[in-house]
Amino acid sequence: MMEDEEMNVKDIFTEMKDISELVLDLAYSSVFFDNDEIAEEVHELEERMGELNYKIKTMATLAVRTREGAEKISEILEVASASEDIANAAGDISNIIKRGFKIHPVILQALKEAEEKIAKVVIKENSNLAGLKIRESELATATGEYIISIKRGKKRIYNPDKETTLKVGDTLLVRGTEEGENLLRKICDGEINEWRN
Amino acid sequence: MMEDEEMNVKDIFTEMKDISELVLDLAYSSVFFDNDEIAEEVHELEERMGELNYKIKTMATLAVRTREGAEKISEILEVASASEDIANAAGDISNIIKRGFKIHPVILQALKEAEEKIAKVVIKENSNLAGLKIRESELATATGEYIISIKRGKKRIYNPDKETTLKVGDTLLVRGTEEGENLLRKICDGEINEWRN
Repeated sequence: MMEDEEMNVKDIFTEMKDISELVLDLAYSSVFFDNDEIAEEVHELEERMGELNYKIKTMATLAVRTREGAEKISEILEVASASEDIANAAGDISNIIKRGFKIHPVILQALKEAEEKIAKVVIKENSNLAGLKIRESELATATGEYIISIKRGKKRIYNPDKETTLKVGDTLLVRGTEEGENLLRKICDGEINEWRN
Repeated sequence: MMEDEEMNVKDIFTEMKDISELVLDLAYSSVFFDNDEIAEEVHELEERMGELNYKIKTMATLAVRTREGAEKISEILEVASASEDIANAAGDISNIIKRGFKIHPVILQALKEAEEKIAKVVIKENSNLAGLKIRESELATATGEYIISIKRGKKRIYNPDKETTLKVGDTLLVRGTEEGENLLRKICDGEINEWRN
Protein backbone atom coordinates (compact mmCIF):
# COMPACT_ATOMS: atom_id res chain seq x y z
CA MET A 1 0.00 0.00 0.00
CA MET A 2 2.69 2.41 1.09
CA GLU A 3 4.72 1.46 -1.97
CA ASP A 4 1.81 2.27 -4.22
CA GLU A 5 1.39 5.70 -2.68
CA GLU A 6 5.11 6.28 -2.99
CA MET A 7 4.85 5.48 -6.71
CA ASN A 8 2.12 8.04 -7.16
CA VAL A 9 4.10 10.69 -5.37
CA LYS A 10 6.99 9.90 -7.68
CA ASP A 11 4.86 10.22 -10.82
CA ILE A 12 3.43 13.56 -9.73
CA PHE A 13 6.81 14.84 -8.64
CA THR A 14 8.37 13.82 -11.96
CA GLU A 15 5.64 15.61 -13.91
CA MET A 16 6.15 18.75 -11.81
CA LYS A 17 9.89 18.67 -12.42
CA ASP A 18 9.35 18.14 -16.17
CA ILE A 19 6.95 21.06 -16.39
CA SER A 20 9.28 23.30 -14.38
CA GLU A 21 12.04 22.57 -16.90
CA LEU A 22 10.03 23.39 -20.00
CA VAL A 23 7.63 26.12 -18.89
CA LEU A 24 10.24 28.88 -18.90
CA ASP A 25 11.28 28.01 -22.47
CA LEU A 26 7.64 28.16 -23.49
CA ALA A 27 7.13 31.48 -21.73
CA TYR A 28 10.11 33.11 -23.43
CA SER A 29 9.10 31.69 -26.79
CA SER A 30 5.51 32.96 -26.40
CA VAL A 31 6.99 36.43 -25.95
CA PHE A 32 9.54 36.09 -28.74
CA PHE A 33 6.97 34.86 -31.28
CA ASP A 34 4.24 37.07 -29.75
CA ASN A 35 2.20 33.88 -29.79
CA ASP A 36 -1.05 33.73 -27.80
CA GLU A 37 -1.35 30.01 -28.34
CA ILE A 38 1.95 29.28 -26.58
CA ALA A 39 1.07 31.82 -23.86
CA GLU A 40 -2.18 29.92 -23.33
CA GLU A 41 -0.21 26.70 -22.90
CA VAL A 42 1.97 28.34 -20.31
CA HIS A 43 -1.21 29.36 -18.52
CA GLU A 44 -2.53 25.78 -18.67
CA LEU A 45 0.74 24.42 -17.34
CA GLU A 46 0.58 26.94 -14.51
CA GLU A 47 -2.89 25.64 -13.60
CA ARG A 48 -1.76 22.04 -13.92
CA MET A 49 1.09 22.77 -11.53
CA GLY A 50 -1.36 24.12 -8.98
CA GLU A 51 -3.37 20.90 -9.20
CA LEU A 52 -0.28 18.70 -8.98
CA ASN A 53 1.05 20.56 -5.98
CA TYR A 54 -2.29 20.13 -4.23
CA LYS A 55 -2.35 16.42 -5.06
CA ILE A 56 1.19 15.76 -3.90
CA LYS A 57 0.57 17.56 -0.61
CA THR A 58 -2.54 15.49 0.07
CA MET A 59 -0.83 12.24 -0.85
CA ALA A 60 2.24 13.02 1.18
CA THR A 61 0.15 13.78 4.24
CA LEU A 62 -1.73 10.52 3.88
CA ALA A 63 1.41 8.49 3.27
CA VAL A 64 3.35 9.75 6.26
CA ARG A 65 3.05 7.71 9.46
CA THR A 66 6.27 8.57 11.28
CA ARG A 67 8.29 11.63 12.21
CA GLU A 68 11.21 10.45 10.08
CA GLY A 69 8.85 9.89 7.17
CA ALA A 70 7.54 13.43 7.57
CA GLU A 71 11.03 14.90 7.46
CA LYS A 72 11.88 12.96 4.35
CA ILE A 73 8.69 13.88 2.52
CA SER A 74 9.11 17.57 3.33
CA GLU A 75 12.06 17.69 0.90
CA ILE A 76 9.77 16.55 -1.89
CA LEU A 77 7.12 19.09 -0.96
CA GLU A 78 9.68 21.88 -0.95
CA VAL A 79 10.93 21.04 -4.42
CA ALA A 80 7.32 20.64 -5.59
CA SER A 81 6.44 24.04 -4.23
CA ALA A 82 9.52 25.58 -5.88
CA SER A 83 8.40 23.99 -9.17
CA GLU A 84 5.05 25.69 -8.81
CA ASP A 85 6.78 29.03 -8.13
CA ILE A 86 8.67 28.58 -11.39
CA ALA A 87 5.47 27.93 -13.34
CA ASN A 88 3.89 31.02 -11.79
CA ALA A 89 6.91 33.14 -12.73
CA ALA A 90 6.73 31.78 -16.29
CA GLY A 91 3.04 32.69 -16.32
CA ASP A 92 3.93 36.25 -15.34
CA ILE A 93 6.39 36.40 -18.23
CA SER A 94 3.97 35.20 -20.88
CA ASN A 95 1.21 37.42 -19.47
CA ILE A 96 2.96 40.47 -20.87
CA ILE A 97 1.87 39.55 -24.38
CA LYS A 98 -1.78 39.19 -23.42
CA ARG A 99 -2.13 42.94 -23.06
CA GLY A 100 -1.61 43.32 -26.77
CA PHE A 101 1.13 45.96 -26.51
CA LYS A 102 4.17 45.65 -28.72
CA ILE A 103 6.90 43.80 -26.87
CA HIS A 104 9.67 46.12 -25.70
CA PRO A 105 12.72 45.92 -28.03
CA VAL A 106 15.03 45.29 -25.08
CA ILE A 107 13.18 42.05 -24.35
CA LEU A 108 13.17 40.92 -27.98
CA GLN A 109 16.87 41.70 -28.28
CA ALA A 110 17.73 39.70 -25.16
CA LEU A 111 15.76 36.71 -26.45
CA LYS A 112 17.30 36.99 -29.89
CA GLU A 113 20.88 36.96 -28.61
CA ALA A 114 20.45 33.74 -26.70
CA GLU A 115 22.83 30.94 -27.70
CA GLU A 116 19.92 28.53 -27.74
CA LYS A 117 16.82 29.40 -29.65
CA ILE A 118 13.28 28.14 -29.71
CA ALA A 119 11.96 27.28 -33.15
CA LYS A 120 8.87 25.71 -34.66
CA VAL A 121 9.19 23.16 -37.44
CA VAL A 122 6.62 20.98 -39.17
CA ILE A 123 7.36 17.43 -40.35
CA LYS A 124 6.50 17.33 -44.04
CA GLU A 125 5.16 14.33 -45.93
CA ASN A 126 8.44 13.40 -47.62
CA SER A 127 10.58 13.70 -44.48
CA ASN A 128 12.40 10.58 -43.32
CA LEU A 129 11.65 11.63 -39.76
CA ALA A 130 8.04 10.50 -40.05
CA GLY A 131 7.51 7.09 -38.50
CA LEU A 132 10.70 7.18 -36.43
CA LYS A 133 10.75 7.09 -32.65
CA ILE A 134 12.63 10.00 -31.10
CA ARG A 135 15.27 7.54 -29.91
CA GLU A 136 15.71 6.17 -33.44
CA SER A 137 15.75 9.64 -34.99
CA GLU A 138 19.00 10.57 -33.20
CA LEU A 139 17.92 14.18 -33.63
CA ALA A 140 19.45 15.51 -30.42
CA THR A 141 22.83 14.00 -31.18
CA ALA A 142 22.79 14.80 -34.90
CA THR A 143 21.44 18.36 -34.77
CA GLY A 144 21.69 19.48 -31.15
CA GLU A 145 17.95 20.23 -31.24
CA TYR A 146 15.69 19.11 -28.39
CA ILE A 147 11.99 18.58 -28.80
CA ILE A 148 10.21 20.59 -26.11
CA SER A 149 6.74 19.71 -27.30
CA ILE A 150 4.91 18.12 -30.20
CA LYS A 151 1.66 19.51 -31.48
CA ARG A 152 -0.44 16.88 -33.22
CA GLY A 153 -3.81 18.20 -34.28
CA LYS A 154 -5.26 19.71 -31.13
CA LYS A 155 -3.15 17.59 -28.81
CA ARG A 156 0.18 18.62 -27.37
CA ILE A 157 2.80 16.26 -25.98
CA TYR A 158 5.15 17.94 -23.53
CA ASN A 159 8.64 16.61 -22.92
CA PRO A 160 8.01 13.64 -25.24
CA ASP A 161 9.95 10.54 -24.26
CA LYS A 162 12.33 8.55 -26.46
CA GLU A 163 9.68 6.04 -27.48
CA THR A 164 7.33 8.68 -28.94
CA THR A 165 6.88 8.17 -32.69
CA LEU A 166 7.10 11.25 -34.90
CA LYS A 167 4.38 11.71 -37.52
CA VAL A 168 3.75 13.71 -40.68
CA GLY A 169 2.15 17.02 -39.78
CA ASP A 170 3.62 17.16 -36.27
CA THR A 171 4.61 20.67 -35.29
CA LEU A 172 7.74 20.45 -33.20
CA LEU A 173 8.74 23.15 -30.77
CA VAL A 174 12.49 22.72 -30.47
CA ARG A 175 15.37 24.30 -28.64
CA GLY A 176 18.88 24.47 -30.05
CA THR A 177 21.40 26.54 -32.00
CA GLU A 178 20.73 28.34 -35.25
CA GLU A 179 22.89 25.81 -37.12
CA GLY A 180 20.94 22.95 -35.57
CA GLU A 181 17.66 24.59 -36.48
CA ASN A 182 18.70 24.95 -40.12
CA LEU A 183 19.74 21.33 -40.28
CA LEU A 184 16.54 20.14 -38.62
CA ARG A 185 14.44 22.25 -40.96
CA LYS A 186 16.01 20.51 -43.95
CA ILE A 187 15.39 17.12 -42.36
CA CYS A 188 11.74 18.02 -41.70
CA ASP A 189 11.35 19.33 -45.26
CA GLY A 190 12.77 16.11 -46.68
CA GLU A 191 15.71 17.96 -48.22
CA ILE A 192 18.18 15.98 -46.12
CA ASN A 193 17.45 12.28 -45.81
CA GLU A 194 20.64 10.96 -44.27
CA TRP A 195 21.67 12.43 -40.93
CA ARG A 196 22.01 9.42 -38.65
CA ASN A 197 25.33 7.78 -37.80
CA MET B 1 21.96 59.85 -22.92
CA MET B 2 18.66 58.00 -23.03
CA GLU B 3 20.16 55.53 -25.47
CA ASP B 4 23.02 54.82 -23.12
CA GLU B 5 20.66 54.13 -20.26
CA GLU B 6 18.59 51.91 -22.53
CA MET B 7 21.75 49.91 -23.31
CA ASN B 8 22.44 49.37 -19.66
CA VAL B 9 18.93 48.19 -19.01
CA LYS B 10 19.36 45.77 -21.90
CA ASP B 11 22.62 44.36 -20.53
CA ILE B 12 21.17 43.83 -17.08
CA PHE B 13 17.97 42.36 -18.48
CA THR B 14 19.93 39.95 -20.69
CA GLU B 15 22.03 38.80 -17.75
CA MET B 16 18.88 38.19 -15.69
CA LYS B 17 17.30 36.19 -18.48
CA ASP B 18 20.49 34.14 -18.94
CA ILE B 19 20.68 33.36 -15.23
CA SER B 20 17.00 32.43 -15.10
CA GLU B 21 17.60 29.90 -17.86
CA LEU B 22 20.56 28.17 -16.25
CA VAL B 23 19.89 28.42 -12.52
CA LEU B 24 17.26 25.66 -12.46
CA ASP B 25 19.61 23.26 -14.27
CA LEU B 26 22.27 24.07 -11.69
CA ALA B 27 19.83 23.59 -8.81
CA TYR B 28 18.70 20.17 -10.02
CA SER B 29 22.27 19.12 -10.71
CA SER B 30 23.39 20.24 -7.23
CA VAL B 31 20.75 17.90 -5.83
CA PHE B 32 21.49 15.06 -8.23
CA PHE B 33 25.24 15.13 -7.55
CA ASP B 34 24.69 16.10 -3.90
CA ASN B 35 27.23 18.81 -4.63
CA ASP B 36 27.65 21.69 -2.16
CA GLU B 37 29.82 23.61 -4.58
CA ILE B 38 27.09 23.80 -7.22
CA ALA B 39 24.51 24.60 -4.52
CA GLU B 40 26.74 27.48 -3.43
CA GLU B 41 26.78 28.77 -7.01
CA VAL B 42 23.01 28.65 -7.12
CA HIS B 43 23.03 30.69 -3.93
CA GLU B 44 25.44 33.23 -5.46
CA LEU B 45 23.29 33.51 -8.60
CA GLU B 46 20.26 34.06 -6.39
CA GLU B 47 22.07 36.96 -4.70
CA ARG B 48 23.27 38.33 -8.02
CA MET B 49 19.67 38.31 -9.27
CA GLY B 50 18.61 40.37 -6.28
CA GLU B 51 21.29 42.95 -7.10
CA LEU B 52 20.40 43.02 -10.80
CA ASN B 53 16.71 43.43 -10.09
CA TYR B 54 17.48 46.34 -7.77
CA LYS B 55 19.73 47.94 -10.40
CA ILE B 56 17.26 47.55 -13.23
CA LYS B 57 14.46 49.06 -11.16
CA THR B 58 16.58 52.08 -10.29
CA MET B 59 17.73 52.57 -13.87
CA ALA B 60 14.26 52.17 -15.29
CA THR B 61 12.88 54.77 -12.90
CA LEU B 62 15.61 57.22 -13.86
CA ALA B 63 15.22 56.56 -17.57
CA VAL B 64 11.48 57.08 -17.75
CA ARG B 65 10.24 60.56 -18.57
CA THR B 66 6.79 59.91 -20.05
CA ARG B 67 3.70 57.89 -19.23
CA GLU B 68 4.12 55.81 -22.36
CA GLY B 69 7.73 55.18 -21.45
CA ALA B 70 6.63 54.03 -18.01
CA GLU B 71 4.14 51.55 -19.47
CA LYS B 72 6.74 50.13 -21.79
CA ILE B 73 9.40 49.77 -19.12
CA SER B 74 6.98 48.03 -16.76
CA GLU B 75 7.05 44.99 -19.07
CA ILE B 76 10.79 44.73 -18.57
CA LEU B 77 10.46 45.07 -14.82
CA GLU B 78 7.83 42.32 -14.71
CA VAL B 79 10.00 39.88 -16.61
CA ALA B 80 12.97 40.89 -14.47
CA SER B 81 11.00 40.25 -11.32
CA ALA B 82 9.81 36.87 -12.64
CA SER B 83 13.47 36.01 -13.35
CA GLU B 84 14.29 36.77 -9.73
CA ASP B 85 11.41 34.54 -8.58
CA ILE B 86 12.89 31.73 -10.64
CA ALA B 87 16.32 32.16 -9.05
CA ASN B 88 14.72 32.14 -5.60
CA ALA B 89 12.82 28.95 -6.41
CA ALA B 90 16.05 27.36 -7.67
CA GLY B 91 17.69 28.43 -4.40
CA ASP B 92 14.94 26.66 -2.46
CA ILE B 93 15.59 23.50 -4.46
CA SER B 94 19.33 23.43 -3.90
CA ASN B 95 18.88 24.33 -0.22
CA ILE B 96 17.56 20.84 0.46
CA ILE B 97 21.07 19.42 0.17
CA LYS B 98 22.53 21.88 2.66
CA ARG B 99 20.80 20.11 5.53
CA GLY B 100 23.01 17.10 4.99
CA PHE B 101 20.15 14.58 4.87
CA LYS B 102 20.21 11.90 2.22
CA ILE B 103 18.20 13.05 -0.79
CA HIS B 104 14.83 11.31 -1.02
CA PRO B 105 14.93 8.48 -3.60
CA VAL B 106 11.82 9.87 -5.33
CA ILE B 107 13.74 13.05 -6.16
CA LEU B 108 16.84 11.21 -7.38
CA GLN B 109 14.70 8.93 -9.51
CA ALA B 110 12.88 11.86 -11.13
CA LEU B 111 16.18 13.55 -11.96
CA LYS B 112 17.67 10.33 -13.28
CA GLU B 113 14.81 9.68 -15.67
CA ALA B 114 15.10 13.05 -17.37
CA GLU B 115 15.72 12.91 -21.11
CA GLU B 116 18.39 15.55 -20.75
CA LYS B 117 21.08 15.08 -18.16
CA ILE B 118 23.60 17.32 -16.52
CA ALA B 119 27.15 16.00 -16.60
CA LYS B 120 30.61 17.19 -15.67
CA VAL B 121 33.54 16.62 -18.02
CA VAL B 122 37.14 17.79 -17.91
CA ILE B 123 39.12 18.71 -21.03
CA LYS B 124 42.26 16.57 -20.97
CA GLU B 125 45.65 17.59 -22.32
CA ASN B 126 45.46 15.55 -25.52
CA SER B 127 41.92 16.62 -26.44
CA ASN B 128 41.48 18.44 -29.74
CA LEU B 129 38.88 20.65 -28.02
CA ALA B 130 41.57 22.64 -26.24
CA GLY B 131 42.26 25.92 -28.03
CA LEU B 132 38.99 25.92 -29.96
CA LYS B 133 36.33 28.56 -29.58
CA ILE B 134 32.92 27.13 -28.71
CA ARG B 135 31.68 28.22 -32.14
CA GLU B 136 34.55 26.38 -33.86
CA SER B 137 34.12 23.30 -31.68
CA GLU B 138 30.64 22.61 -33.14
CA LEU B 139 29.95 20.68 -29.93
CA ALA B 140 26.25 21.46 -29.72
CA THR B 141 25.59 20.35 -33.27
CA ALA B 142 27.91 17.33 -33.17
CA THR B 143 27.02 15.95 -29.74
CA GLY B 144 23.82 17.70 -28.68
CA GLU B 145 25.59 18.82 -25.50
CA TYR B 146 25.30 22.42 -24.29
CA ILE B 147 27.86 24.02 -22.06
CA ILE B 148 26.05 25.50 -19.07
CA SER B 149 29.19 26.70 -17.35
CA ILE B 150 32.95 26.40 -17.51
CA LYS B 151 35.04 26.11 -14.38
CA ARG B 152 38.57 27.34 -14.93
CA GLY B 153 40.60 27.30 -11.73
CA LYS B 154 38.50 29.24 -9.24
CA LYS B 155 36.62 31.14 -11.91
CA ARG B 156 33.32 30.10 -13.41
CA ILE B 157 31.93 31.29 -16.72
CA TYR B 158 28.13 31.01 -16.95
CA ASN B 159 26.38 30.69 -20.29
CA PRO B 160 29.69 31.08 -22.17
CA ASP B 161 29.29 32.70 -25.58
CA LYS B 162 30.41 31.29 -28.91
CA GLU B 163 33.71 33.18 -28.87
CA THR B 164 34.87 31.66 -25.56
CA THR B 165 38.01 29.57 -26.07
CA LEU B 166 38.09 26.16 -24.39
CA LYS B 167 41.25 25.27 -22.47
CA VAL B 168 42.97 22.21 -21.06
CA GLY B 169 41.77 21.59 -17.50
CA ASP B 170 38.40 23.31 -18.03
CA THR B 171 35.61 21.54 -16.20
CA LEU B 172 32.49 21.76 -18.31
CA LEU B 173 29.03 21.45 -16.85
CA VAL B 174 26.94 20.26 -19.78
CA ARG B 175 23.34 19.37 -20.52
CA GLY B 176 22.37 16.78 -23.09
CA THR B 177 21.47 13.15 -23.69
CA GLU B 178 23.36 10.14 -22.41
CA GLU B 179 24.60 9.37 -25.94
CA GLY B 180 25.83 12.94 -26.31
CA GLU B 181 27.57 12.79 -22.97
CA ASN B 182 29.42 9.61 -23.92
CA LEU B 183 30.56 11.15 -27.19
CA LEU B 184 31.65 14.39 -25.50
CA ARG B 185 33.56 12.44 -22.85
CA LYS B 186 35.57 10.69 -25.56
CA ILE B 187 36.26 14.04 -27.24
CA CYS B 188 37.41 15.55 -23.93
CA ASP B 189 39.58 12.52 -23.20
CA GLY B 190 41.23 12.77 -26.62
CA GLU B 191 39.89 9.34 -27.64
CA ILE B 192 37.90 10.86 -30.53
CA ASN B 193 39.71 13.53 -32.50
CA GLU B 194 37.41 14.00 -35.48
CA TRP B 195 33.86 15.01 -34.76
CA ARG B 196 33.37 18.19 -36.79
CA ASN B 197 31.68 18.28 -40.17
